[in-house]
Amino acid sequence: MRILMIMGLLWTACAATGASAADISAGKARAGSACAVCHGVLGLSTLPNAPSLAGQPEIYLAEQLKNYRSGKRTHEVMSVIAKPLSDQDIDNLAAWYASLQIEVREAR
Amino acid sequence: MRILMIMGLLWTACAATGASAADISAGKARAGSACAVCHGVLGLSTLPNAPSLAGQPEIYLAEQLKNYRSGKRTHEVMSVIAKPLSDQDIDNLAAWYASLQIEVREAR
Repeated sequence: MRILMIMGLLWTACAATGASAADISAGKARAGSACAVCHGVLGLSTLPNAPSLAGQPEIYLAEQLKNYRSGKRTHEVMSVIAKPLSDQDIDNLAAWYASLQIEVREAR
Repeated sequence: MRILMIMGLLWTACAATGASAADISAGKARAGSACAVCHGVLGLSTLPNAPSLAGQPEIYLAEQLKNYRSGKRTHEVMSVIAKPLSDQDIDNLAAWYASLQIEVREAR
């Protein structure tokens, strides 16, 4: 029973750390200055070759930014944009775009 | 005046060719068998590391599929999925996902 309680506390601590690691407001501020021109103020693409980021999974977004930063994924603009981002910047940006809710409907 | 008319007809012909090149229904059918498990029946991601594709710009989608096919962009699953796709398959898939309409709202 004690082991279960300790495991529960550890899980809660880890979850809390994970939740507090990313700052949505900071991500929103950073996105407004760095990303909005191409990806839209609310994450809806403004260019035919830029993806919409609104509502994308947080893990996917962070992974792609890290791939651009490391050079695993390349793009003439994104490779430059991602270069100076810290892990914290990336977590914040991913949290901001993932926090936006999207609804989809099939065109008639 | 005749030159302008000819230019207008040529433009119309090109536009018509472009519009008929992609088959949304064929893209939907293909997506249902190949993409829906990870990217959702209506293009909303079902996995934390798979992007939502609904409403993404058609040009962006086609470009990314071609990048996976050529190896410019790599992913353990997508590199395999994209390998056998023809240009027509890619155009159809891109047209299908781009045809889905998304709305976004900021979480409170």
